[in-house]
Amino acid sequence: MSDQQTPSFTHLDSQGNASMVDVTEKAVTQREARAEAYIQMQPETLDLILSGGHKKGDVLATARIAGIQAAKKTSDLIPLCHPLMLTKVAVELIPEPENNRVRIESLCKLAGQTGVEMEALTAASVAALTLYDMCKAVDKHMVISGTKVLEKKGGKSGHWLMDS
Amino acid sequence: MSDQQTPSFTHLDSQGNASMVDVTEKAVTQREARAEAYIQMQPETLDLILSGGHKKGDVLATARIAGIQAAKKTSDLIPLCHPLMLTKVAVELIPEPENNRVRIESLCKLAGQTGVEMEALTAASVAALTLYDMCKAVDKHMVISGTKVLEKKGGKSGHWLMDS
Amino acid sequence: MSDQQTPSFTHLDSQGNASMVDVTEKAVTQREARAEAYIQMQPETLDLILSGGHKKGDVLATARIAGIQAAKKTSDLIPLCHPLMLTKVAVELIPEPENNRVRIESLCKLAGQTGVEMEALTAASVAALTLYDMCKAVDKHMVISGTKVLEKKGGKSGHWLMDS
Amino acid sequence: MSDQQTPSFTHLDSQGNASMVDVTEKAVTQREARAEAYIQMQPETLDLILSGGHKKGDVLATARIAGIQAAKKTSDLIPLCHPLMLTKVAVELIPEPENNRVRIESLCKLAGQTGVEMEALTAASVAALTLYDMCKAVDKHMVISGTKVLEKKGGKSGHWLMDS
Amino acid sequence: MSDQQTPSFTHLDSQGNASMVDVTEKAVTQREARAEAYIQMQPETLDLILSGGHKKGDVLATARIAGIQAAKKTSDLIPLCHPLMLTKVAVELIPEPENNRVRIESLCKLAGQTGVEMEALTAASVAALTLYDMCKAVDKHMVISGTKVLEKKGGKSGHWLMDS
Amino acid sequence: MSDQQTPSFTHLDSQGNASMVDVTEKAVTQREARAEAYIQMQPETLDLILSGGHKKGDVLATARIAGIQAAKKTSDLIPLCHPLMLTKVAVELIPEPENNRVRIESLCKLAGQTGVEMEALTAASVAALTLYDMCKAVDKHMVISGTKVLEKKGGKSGHWLMDS
Repeated sequence: MSDQQTPSFTHLDSQGNASMVDVTEKAVTQREARAEAYIQMQPETLDLILSGGHKKGDVLATARIAGIQAAKKTSDLIPLCHPLMLTKVAVELIPEPENNRVRIESLCKLAGQTGVEMEALTAASVAALTLYDMCKAVDKHMVISGTKVLEKKGGKSGHWLMDS
Repeated sequence: MSDQQTPSFTHLDSQGNASMVDVTEKAVTQREARAEAYIQMQPETLDLILSGGHKKGDVLATARIAGIQAAKKTSDLIPLCHPLMLTKVAVELIPEPENNRVRIESLCKLAGQTGVEMEALTAASVAALTLYDMCKAVDKHMVISGTKVLEKKGGKSGHWLMDS
Repeated sequence: MSDQQTPSFTHLDSQGNASMVDVTEKAVTQREARAEAYIQMQPETLDLILSGGHKKGDVLATARIAGIQAAKKTSDLIPLCHPLMLTKVAVELIPEPENNRVRIESLCKLAGQTGVEMEALTAASVAALTLYDMCKAVDKHMVISGTKVLEKKGGKSGHWLMDS
Repeated sequence: MSDQQTPSFTHLDSQGNASMVDVTEKAVTQREARAEAYIQMQPETLDLILSGGHKKGDVLATARIAGIQAAKKTSDLIPLCHPLMLTKVAVELIPEPENNRVRIESLCKLAGQTGVEMEALTAASVAALTLYDMCKAVDKHMVISGTKVLEKKGGKSGHWLMDS
Repeated sequence: MSDQQTPSFTHLDSQGNASMVDVTEKAVTQREARAEAYIQMQPETLDLILSGGHKKGDVLATARIAGIQAAKKTSDLIPLCHPLMLTKVAVELIPEPENNRVRIESLCKLAGQTGVEMEALTAASVAALTLYDMCKAVDKHMVISGTKVLEKKGGKSGHWLMDS
Repeated sequence: MSDQQTPSFTHLDSQGNASMVDVTEKAVTQREARAEAYIQMQPETLDLILSGGHKKGDVLATARIAGIQAAKKTSDLIPLCHPLMLTKVAVELIPEPENNRVRIESLCKLAGQTGVEMEALTAASVAALTLYDMCKAVDKHMVISGTKVLEKKGGKSGHWLMDS
């Protein structure tokens, strides 16, 4: 299963059993990942988010906090993820009224032995779910989509940027 | 903001502060929700999932278990969700080779005071993230999309089915 | 220690071992508790919280969300607390510039077999700690005090109000 | 907001959004913090704690264990705290019958990139809440107060001692 | 697999996928389970536990608290367990010097839709692991054994007692 | 513990209070531990696990995943364990039909300041409990036994192997 020629799953051992990849001997380097997700909604729902003064603050702040906390829970949620000591998490929610959606962008950083793209993806996903939760009483047709990694830095694979 | 005429956010009080909706006096009824999500991948990645005998079992089983466990963590992940005692959670992963994707469908049930669509959405989202985690070493271009509620039963709003 | 005449600790059995009180046969009734806490700070620190527009929103919203989430974690934090399904949690932060402090008031509700004052106290305490965390870089002399129950409703003991 | 002249909140970005402070490039140094809290009670309540032989052991031991475990949960409770690998946690409960109260002192240590005063404060607060929980059936008027940092060592700011 | 004649796994659906058993329509009844576990150790290790005055209290109290808290985490640890609201948890540790071991007995109670034997087993197991942790510096040869259910009450299957 | 002559508990301070051992100044070295546990069952129960094709996969995969996730929760379950960043966790389940049991072996690795045997023991114990949970509807007489450490590497004590 470790043959260079054929790609294989790093999370399965030679008998096909799920296990956590061994990173014991990997170097500690600075790592960083950015991810995004979108939540599509009715124009009226987005208006409601945008119209409130204080209110807007709390709706977006709640989703932002939920995303940050979720990044820290990634290894508890995703069975084969390593526990990590994130050194920076940020989540931004950018309303895009022209597209009837909110764009969510997350950033995670670490000085550690493994990459942080799962943490960034988890932050963006949970921020989107939290926005869904707060808006679901007024909009039953929301859809979360486009959840993906945008950029990775650090580690053996160096700098990687999703082609747009 | 509590005017019946205009839709409003149930998770904000009259000053716009985030708070958990009061369901103390709601009746305990049987409730159910189904949700789905998709993860798009390279054809070679899906082949790899499908080709393994044992291996396939563990990849899909790991995602299924992660989704089930995530449903139970919903109120810990989403700040304004009520803690619930789910009576049934199931997560199915259906490979769709013709579309280069895996479809994930989740089902949550409860005899309780509030709906379970957030639990179903969380289960589907985390199953998708887990699949992403196990395939990311061979495919850097996966995208999770189409995360939405398919059906709701029980509670005041009765039976609701997303129009397809 | 089980003598009716002398008060005793309900969380210790007859050998003095800590254990969770048996509430299996208690009736399910509507219960409610309000608690409060204060965080004392330099006038400049409170000015900083009050001066920002967006900023103020996020500082207070973060503490509010943390308090709400902590209420749901009470039985995980306090060893002999029963797991509960809270039906309502709210946390309010009221700046009191005249006293150089922020007052925090929490409310928890439940239809269940045991009281929710520990949940209300935990919500107020963690909201205060979160405010401390966000202000500690500009003020090293903050003190959290006055954490107490204000009011209880429901259950065998009925309505109880802290004498002011 | 990053102007050296005016103090500012390190947990807010330039738009005022809450985010976790970036400590990726901070040096790993030995850090230490001590905090305290007090719980005021009726003299009879404190007598009850002090009179039991085994019993006393379990009441104070339960609060001590709860405080230690809470220190490890700090980054899960306080949204903008970094996950840390504490290398030492201790919680002491000192009955002060002359003042009708119990003093709680906590100590946290770490070889890491950020300070541990929030962990020490959380340990002291949760130990106090646990004591409250075990005594609340015999005393409805307890108050937790004086929760503050006593001393900090390590990191850029060096040794800091709360003036008494 | 759903044939009444042949026994089958209730946690696998008709395709063999793991899922949580549906208990939505089961009646709420009072349920109870007792379980036990043993930890075998060197006579000197047990002497050390028994000799200390204060010390003994804290060693056994720590294990007891850990067992109680673990019972509440069962549905988080065991993927297909339902979240439950335990109404009573007790853990007893009984040193048996004549057998060079400590016997651990746990009791869990609930008014709910499903049995609590997994909660009782988890409490006993984690209490044993905690004792192991505290003694491992002086004894490298401890073994945990005999972890089993002793008795079950309530639910469809009524009263069941392990034959001794 | 500082007297070489008499062994003592490292988790108790000089007053006999439970506290987390101070590892702040211990060197970061590569550490590793292997542990095992057995679950005894009726021959028919083991047949049922072994007979299913897909089914077998999911039963054993569920227990394996639960064990891996539990290793990561060790410091949350066992009060005086340090939080650790495991770099490798693997859990193997080996059916032994000749002995009517399943053997569970776990492996944990870390580059850190303290050993990982508690993590390995917790992984094996929770994998066994999960297997118990999935088989309990068809077998009420299962027993978990023989939970012990098999091997330790790294740290001050070097390589240690349980004599078989």
